[in-house]
Amino acid sequence: MTERLVVIGADAAGMSAASQARRARDQGDLRIVAFDRGRHTSYSACGIPYWIGGQVASADNLVARTPEAHRERGIDVRLRHEVLGIDLDRREVVARDLDGGGELREGFEQLMIAAGAMPVRPDWTGVDARGVHGVQTLDDGEDVHDTLDRGGRRAVVIGGGYIGVELAESMVRRGLSVTMLEKADQPMSSLDPDMGALVRKAMCGVGIEVRTGVSVRGIEAGGDGWVRAVATDDDTVPADVVVLGLGTRPNSGLARDAGLPVGRSGGIVTDRRMRVPGHDGVWAGGDCVETLHLVSGLPVSIPLGTHANKQGRVAGINLGGGYATFPGVVGTAMSKVCDLEIARTGLTEKEAEASGFAFVTATIESDARAGYYPGAEGMTVKLLAERGTGRLLGGQIVGREGAAKRVDVLAVALWNRMTVEEMTALDLGYAPPFSPVWDPVLVAARKAAEVCRNG
Amino acid sequence: MTERLVVIGADAAGMSAASQARRARDQGDLRIVAFDRGRHTSYSACGIPYWIGGQVASADNLVARTPEAHRERGIDVRLRHEVLGIDLDRREVVARDLDGGGELREGFEQLMIAAGAMPVRPDWTGVDARGVHGVQTLDDGEDVHDTLDRGGRRAVVIGGGYIGVELAESMVRRGLSVTMLEKADQPMSSLDPDMGALVRKAMCGVGIEVRTGVSVRGIEAGGDGWVRAVATDDDTVPADVVVLGLGTRPNSGLARDAGLPVGRSGGIVTDRRMRVPGHDGVWAGGDCVETLHLVSGLPVSIPLGTHANKQGRVAGINLGGGYATFPGVVGTAMSKVCDLEIARTGLTEKEAEASGFAFVTATIESDARAGYYPGAEGMTVKLLAERGTGRLLGGQIVGREGAAKRVDVLAVALWNRMTVEEMTALDLGYAPPFSPVWDPVLVAARKAAEVCRNG
Repeated sequence: MTERLVVIGADAAGMSAASQARRARDQGDLRIVAFDRGRHTSYSACGIPYWIGGQVASADNLVARTPEAHRERGIDVRLRHEVLGIDLDRREVVARDLDGGGELREGFEQLMIAAGAMPVRPDWTGVDARGVHGVQTLDDGEDVHDTLDRGGRRAVVIGGGYIGVELAESMVRRGLSVTMLEKADQPMSSLDPDMGALVRKAMCGVGIEVRTGVSVRGIEAGGDGWVRAVATDDDTVPADVVVLGLGTRPNSGLARDAGLPVGRSGGIVTDRRMRVPGHDGVWAGGDCVETLHLVSGLPVSIPLGTHANKQGRVAGINLGGGYATFPGVVGTAMSKVCDLEIARTGLTEKEAEASGFAFVTATIESDARAGYYPGAEGMTVKLLAERGTGRLLGGQIVGREGAAKRVDVLAVALWNRMTVEEMTALDLGYAPPFSPVWDPVLVAARKAAEVCRNG
Repeated sequence: MTERLVVIGADAAGMSAASQARRARDQGDLRIVAFDRGRHTSYSACGIPYWIGGQVASADNLVARTPEAHRERGIDVRLRHEVLGIDLDRREVVARDLDGGGELREGFEQLMIAAGAMPVRPDWTGVDARGVHGVQTLDDGEDVHDTLDRGGRRAVVIGGGYIGVELAESMVRRGLSVTMLEKADQPMSSLDPDMGALVRKAMCGVGIEVRTGVSVRGIEAGGDGWVRAVATDDDTVPADVVVLGLGTRPNSGLARDAGLPVGRSGGIVTDRRMRVPGHDGVWAGGDCVETLHLVSGLPVSIPLGTHANKQGRVAGINLGGGYATFPGVVGTAMSKVCDLEIARTGLTEKEAEASGFAFVTATIESDARAGYYPGAEGMTVKLLAERGTGRLLGGQIVGREGAAKRVDVLAVALWNRMTVEEMTALDLGYAPPFSPVWDPVLVAARKAAEVCRNG
């Protein structure tokens, strides 16, 4: 008998799962139907800021695989179809055809929930004015383009996280005057404030006005319904376009309503094979799930394409009859503002405290290359290590060319529970065009090990 | 009583040891005398090609710490002093003053041997002609500069290892016509031939004539004593300057003559604290020692500044009364030819075979950045994994900007004995300017894991 797989969400996790399952099982063995509210499949949401900034020419470039390509491989992709409910007793999903109207029911033996994340959208007055955008999907990106094409010159970005920072730069590139409003004391609150201060400096250096410690009260719109300004506790900031970069939360409502387990982080609970425990044949992956943070040991929801792709692949391999696992994450993330590279992994000070760790920190500055080699530029590396054991708990890197990807060394060290003392001996690549004879990561490990020894 | 430390060799390992010991023990507690045959201390030999190529303005830029700076810190540096012998019974070294003449004896309680490596110099006829250079020390670099300043236009590089490849590029930069002669079938015999072929292509692309499978018979000199040509099995290659890049061997003769243990690799044997076993108060580090290869489990001698610095630091911390260890290496090395980045770690196919491993290989091509991000360029990643266990055994990367330093992920994975299957889940940094959503290393791990499962 042909088994039926329904996939909710046709982006990274959903289509990775569908593709992997299809590789192992042909259409006679497994029928695959994938629903998505939007108009696109398998695209890079992380690329949207570069499309807005003009470095990427069109949305098409961000699409890794079109609906047609999926259909050719025997995956029945149904776009503009919003899934309204999951009926686990009848093993059906209920979906609405957003264009044609009407509802339909689709039965399944296997269900893959990859419903993604919802952008946080506060209920400020005026938040629904035209020209106020979340930036989550390719469709959102098109909307931002349409607003910018109207010719306004003043942009306000609310929220100083990765997306906010990247969008601020993108709009500066387009010649807009950009103001960023951030509640915290520094942008990039996923870094420690001392590292966030370095990012702020770089942002100001390219003409972005960064206002921190600012609370937004509401959005002011004109009689034409278009945004005019953002009202804060302090004053009113004129705006022709407003972009919300306030983060996301897992889109786990459907799962919760169906009685599936949703964790403390707001994400759907899965096991390491991406199965939803207690519900045979139900799988989940991507921004809508929670995963184990391998350093803190706590569940987290981290919306990131690389996790979504991995989780989708793991679910798909298992759906295909193979065996694969997603053990968790160590919290690696990175970004770029103009020439400044930014990366983090593991726990920040705040996160380490919240997880119950006692820790020491060490911060160093070093060049990315041998100091005498042309183009050597600096970076700042900060490490956290557990007091007593010296176990690496986290790291943050801010610097110029060649800085950010060094976070991978820290990520692999965290994965393997290395101590900073052990790390000082790591056999990292050395040649003058690439690294000083002591790689900055090793210099930081040396300092952290010294701090650990001294108390 | 003041203890006396004698250091043989005033470069990376020797002066790192001296500096660390000095940090922990003042001059009343420890007197430090360092001998060196040359004129310089603590310099980057790895930087010499860039000095010859003109990217680095002068030898001074390559000196991390001058003799004067060391003396100010209470280290009695004696340059142009060649150590002739170690008398372990009397606990003295015998040295010759190369400029003043005469011999002297210096007593010690602690001895640090950091005598470096000797360039391999075959006994070809004419090898001592003027204009034929090894490139090992700053003094050698000065000699090459002097020869090049005479205005010859034809350079021959004998040997296609790291130094040979880097020097070939340097001389192309200076406008010379460069021929490389290599005995093996591909340059970069520290890579597998399939990866070496990529390097060859890049070298030819910048106008270097690469001749492989060529044996040198001798050097022809003119009546003025200057080199005129290199004679090979095939023909005669005209040359105004010849650079030897034939590798090095540990300079362990002094130690051997003194009765200290020298291993199969030709390097002095030490324990993980860099003590010479069975000889209290005798330490060694840098290019003259052998170290444990953590993947093969075999002793190796790998002349590389980064190991020398680490080993010197470890010896110095222990000499200072602290505790530090150098557990070994995983065989990481990297280089650059024009725009091509080259890196390796762990074992090559040949090395894996020689170590007794059965293995599978997987090679992939991928971009360094998201494909849609401007400037995305490709790289080739090859992995070796043990048959059966799937344990990573080695990796090689050849590609454009952003390729080589990814070897660090492999180096840390090797250090921790990860399997390629485990590696597929690694939480590596992702953002479009830095990486595709699947980092090339993960794509390679996926493929290797698949090969392991199927084979």
